[in-house]
Amino acid sequence: MSIFIEQVLVGGEPTDILIQGNTIAGIGTQLQMPANALRLSGKGKAAFPAFANAHTHAAMSLFRGYGDDNPLDIWLNNWIWPKERQLDDDIVYWGTRLACLEMVKSGTCCFNDMYFFLPAAARAIHDSGLRATLGLTVMDFHDPATTRQKQAEIEQFDFDSIRLDSRIQMAIAPHAIYTVSGPMLQWCANFSRQAGMRYHIHMSETEKEVADCQQANGCRPYEYLHRLGIIEQLQDTFIGAHSLHLSKEEIELLGRNRANVVNNPNSNLKLASGHAFPYSELRQHGANVALGTDGCSSSNNLDMIEAAKTASLLQKGWRHDPTVLPAAETLAMATQNGYRAMGLNGGVLEPGALADLFLVDLDNLAFVPNNNTLSNLIYAAHGDAVDTLICDGQILMQHRQVADEDLVVQQARQAAQRLLR
Amino acid sequence: MSIFIEQVLVGGEPTDILIQGNTIAGIGTQLQMPANALRLSGKGKAAFPAFANAHTHAAMSLFRGYGDDNPLDIWLNNWIWPKERQLDDDIVYWGTRLACLEMVKSGTCCFNDMYFFLPAAARAIHDSGLRATLGLTVMDFHDPATTRQKQAEIEQFDFDSIRLDSRIQMAIAPHAIYTVSGPMLQWCANFSRQAGMRYHIHMSETEKEVADCQQANGCRPYEYLHRLGIIEQLQDTFIGAHSLHLSKEEIELLGRNRANVVNNPNSNLKLASGHAFPYSELRQHGANVALGTDGCSSSNNLDMIEAAKTASLLQKGWRHDPTVLPAAETLAMATQNGYRAMGLNGGVLEPGALADLFLVDLDNLAFVPNNNTLSNLIYAAHGDAVDTLICDGQILMQHRQVADEDLVVQQARQAAQRLLR
Repeated sequence: MSIFIEQVLVGGEPTDILIQGNTIAGIGTQLQMPANALRLSGKGKAAFPAFANAHTHAAMSLFRGYGDDNPLDIWLNNWIWPKERQLDDDIVYWGTRLACLEMVKSGTCCFNDMYFFLPAAARAIHDSGLRATLGLTVMDFHDPATTRQKQAEIEQFDFDSIRLDSRIQMAIAPHAIYTVSGPMLQWCANFSRQAGMRYHIHMSETEKEVADCQQANGCRPYEYLHRLGIIEQLQDTFIGAHSLHLSKEEIELLGRNRANVVNNPNSNLKLASGHAFPYSELRQHGANVALGTDGCSSSNNLDMIEAAKTASLLQKGWRHDPTVLPAAETLAMATQNGYRAMGLNGGVLEPGALADLFLVDLDNLAFVPNNNTLSNLIYAAHGDAVDTLICDGQILMQHRQVADEDLVVQQARQAAQRLLR
Repeated sequence: MSIFIEQVLVGGEPTDILIQGNTIAGIGTQLQMPANALRLSGKGKAAFPAFANAHTHAAMSLFRGYGDDNPLDIWLNNWIWPKERQLDDDIVYWGTRLACLEMVKSGTCCFNDMYFFLPAAARAIHDSGLRATLGLTVMDFHDPATTRQKQAEIEQFDFDSIRLDSRIQMAIAPHAIYTVSGPMLQWCANFSRQAGMRYHIHMSETEKEVADCQQANGCRPYEYLHRLGIIEQLQDTFIGAHSLHLSKEEIELLGRNRANVVNNPNSNLKLASGHAFPYSELRQHGANVALGTDGCSSSNNLDMIEAAKTASLLQKGWRHDPTVLPAAETLAMATQNGYRAMGLNGGVLEPGALADLFLVDLDNLAFVPNNNTLSNLIYAAHGDAVDTLICDGQILMQHRQVADEDLVVQQARQAAQRLLR
């Protein structure tokens, strides 16, 4: 099927966009519309590449607003972890469907997930029409018997059964250095490399994690991965979420290896992990910096526009420099840098790129007046400005109508009630 | 007229709210509905007190997205100030109407404004149905001849002509200590006190302002106002916007005098003024801390939910304490503390308070699942979750429909074009 979006604002100019199959086939001011194409009017709309949420835990949408404002250890030990033991396929399916619905309604086509019950999550993603990299979460709690058991489980895991369509790819996701032993971190690196998968891990999220690593290993977290040979081995297939507390040497290490780092500003603030993400230094040294919301238990929503605004404003504020992370660079962080982290050609409006994009409604007050469409998107809008979303060449939302919204809302409410009451 | 809101969620319980005239007459689980009352169903909705935006420049909505990402002096000198010289009644009227429309659509009933062309702004507020404190902006640029001229103008100003209805009150708004001379700051304090008005001023917004004050006056900005006798004279009629860079002594001074301080987190970040607002210290010493968005030229929207989330998360993040500014306290800052700053009994759902409130739609995904309605409002929602808004006992929005929205959008676009092209 072809889609022809006619005269939509792109970079301030009325532009035609031709989508064929799952890719952007053409973009320009005077494109020819194929006879069989579905025509979408771009009148009163602007087009942007879709967001890539580069670090999240989708099914945790069911935990939204649960246990807020508590100290981190109480939040984890008394609220989140006891409930996570009660997860099942049905809960993860509807939690992931709810997350996908929220992402569709706020402009996100692609996300990098790390959670449990992968077959259920994969079915939810397949049914929603979105694109995802599904991380198989690994924890061995530094126990050698568990290490061997988990390795056997991963070797026997039927990864093909998870790839229900071409939009879903798998990753290996060792949870963090404090929940996964050194040998297991290395084993996962070898496994993911041989399988051609991404390696997705929480890194340097809190000062405590850094201090504990220094105590246990005599070095900082990324230096520890460096000693294990992991960063050099994986390079641009490595995705380090958070990566908030970094030394100059760690930043150089990440840059030298073109590694991917995911900034999660709202989660880092809300969990009080810190505010001073070293964005400029990471970019300067060559790392790829993407953007994520983290799960709804810590960031409360999956709105990438909100995350983008917070990321940009926070950099300006703590650096005392209003020119840092301007709107265009912030959009790139929220779109193409995320696709790149996942090894995908998307998050750009260019011929040959994946047809993942959205249209905003210029009658939304965030775009009134429309002195600067890009500024309005990043600094004034929220997800509700998104009118139409196309993922993999399929229209998933038009005029804010999404298939099955009522069903997903109703089932997600029931799943949350079963999980949390 | 009476309004009876039936079985709406308040604090997690289905509750009835009775509004008579412009006040809340009753609130409880088993209220009697008067025969002549208009019945509003609260099914699938939760009620909250309306937001008070305690520092803004409403008509600057026309500058949305204009000159972003520039250094502060270039932004002011090359972008904003040259255009502000071209303001006129028509531009300020439609800019203020646009701001009021955005406020209605995001849950704000009351705002504390500081701008120019007050008769036009007052007409816009009157026509929109909102409540405002309109500050007469004063600048003399430390020039004695201008001081005398401005004093004469203020003495002759027909304040009564601005109070077009009971929802509009006037304030005296000396712009800042760097644009207003010491004698004029004192004269305005005397004038506002005698007239029973609020005194609204930008204070300690940037480190440069503090350094310049120390250079010129040998003390910090609030110490300077203290020496002029202004804080002690005005006490809780004083409203200091921003007040970001404060010494321990200045915080004690504000607390001792129960002065009002307005936190503007998004503006402070975006203009790179800083991030470390001394919220806890101000509260601890007794100051009243309210919340504002600042104008759309620096914060880009007027969404008080967004401002509330940023305020709370920023405190947690830079203090490394996730328990600071929990949701209930954040809501108070965004609602009742703002009304209190303006000397009004509002921003609370209590009998006798002004009938300024809104209903959110619990089908909005920010409230799915609804584990905690208050957390969902502050941490997950945006202004678009507001379904119904009542100000001064009048329904200004129902099911997101506002009178004259198309007209206001169209006229505001034209006014912006005339101003900025």
